[in-house]
Amino acid sequence: MTNPTTITAQPGTPFLDIVREFDAPREKVYRAYTDAALVTQWMGPRRLSMDLTSWDVRPGGSWGFFNRDADGTEYQFHGVFHAVTPGEHILWTFEFDGAPGHVSLESIDFDDLGSRSRVRIHAVYQSVEDRDAMAAGGMESGVTEGFERMDELLQSVSAR
Amino acid sequence: MTNPTTITAQPGTPFLDIVREFDAPREKVYRAYTDAALVTQWMGPRRLSMDLTSWDVRPGGSWGFFNRDADGTEYQFHGVFHAVTPGEHILWTFEFDGAPGHVSLESIDFDDLGSRSRVRIHAVYQSVEDRDAMAAGGMESGVTEGFERMDELLQSVSAR
Repeated sequence: MTNPTTITAQPGTPFLDIVREFDAPREKVYRAYTDAALVTQWMGPRRLSMDLTSWDVRPGGSWGFFNRDADGTEYQFHGVFHAVTPGEHILWTFEFDGAPGHVSLESIDFDDLGSRSRVRIHAVYQSVEDRDAMAAGGMESGVTEGFERMDELLQSVSAR
Repeated sequence: MTNPTTITAQPGTPFLDIVREFDAPREKVYRAYTDAALVTQWMGPRRLSMDLTSWDVRPGGSWGFFNRDADGTEYQFHGVFHAVTPGEHILWTFEFDGAPGHVSLESIDFDDLGSRSRVRIHAVYQSVEDRDAMAAGGMESGVTEGFERMDELLQSVSAR
């Protein structure tokens, strides 16, 4: 059975919250987020390939990737890591290059539940309208499918 | 006469907006923000000295400074530049090290009004409570006094 992905976008606020549990210890889930060779194997929906331009996981490091669909259409994203606490916490900026100048600030917390773990994402946008546009843009299915791909990946990944 | 500083913190939102006009072209105001030798001469209240630990004004660059009062008490701040459009726009993350883990995302837009200019700051916090704490913390007088110090500085600064 798949663990549910809970996405909350309270009307009238610029916040978006995502909570997801994994049947794997947090060290492995953190590694799936931060190891460049792993993140491209699960983040986002199955129909999109993912290539990194940068994945420099440290305070002040940059990240960037592009997705490509079967038609060759590309979608680029980029941002900067503000904070990184290994195994526990990441805080980055996030921008979809298709909507330049609309940036969000996203924290990702990894909770230790013993042999299981929980990811909590709290994103804040520059306006309620920006948040609404992101929530309406098919983000939900991509996030949910990505986490299902991570479930599959985690079965073959060791904690570092 | 001093130009007014308008600070807006709409109740129940995590947003803080600051608008200030200057009797100087935007090139000079932008330089006052981005030239490391100038920013320490105006940012913040007169009673605090300011020393930079980093002021790397480029996308992915880091910034940091500490204020020190007459008693030697230090207040540190740091963040990263997500976006920099020279002369026009800066977007950075902002964290007061005295409240670690509470980060805001702040855009600074420089409007060209001919021989005059306007600075528009839009900050968004991770929660309404974080915004309220910042708005209640004496930020207003420090911002207003800082801009008055910039007025004085701009009289002796050339556009680059």
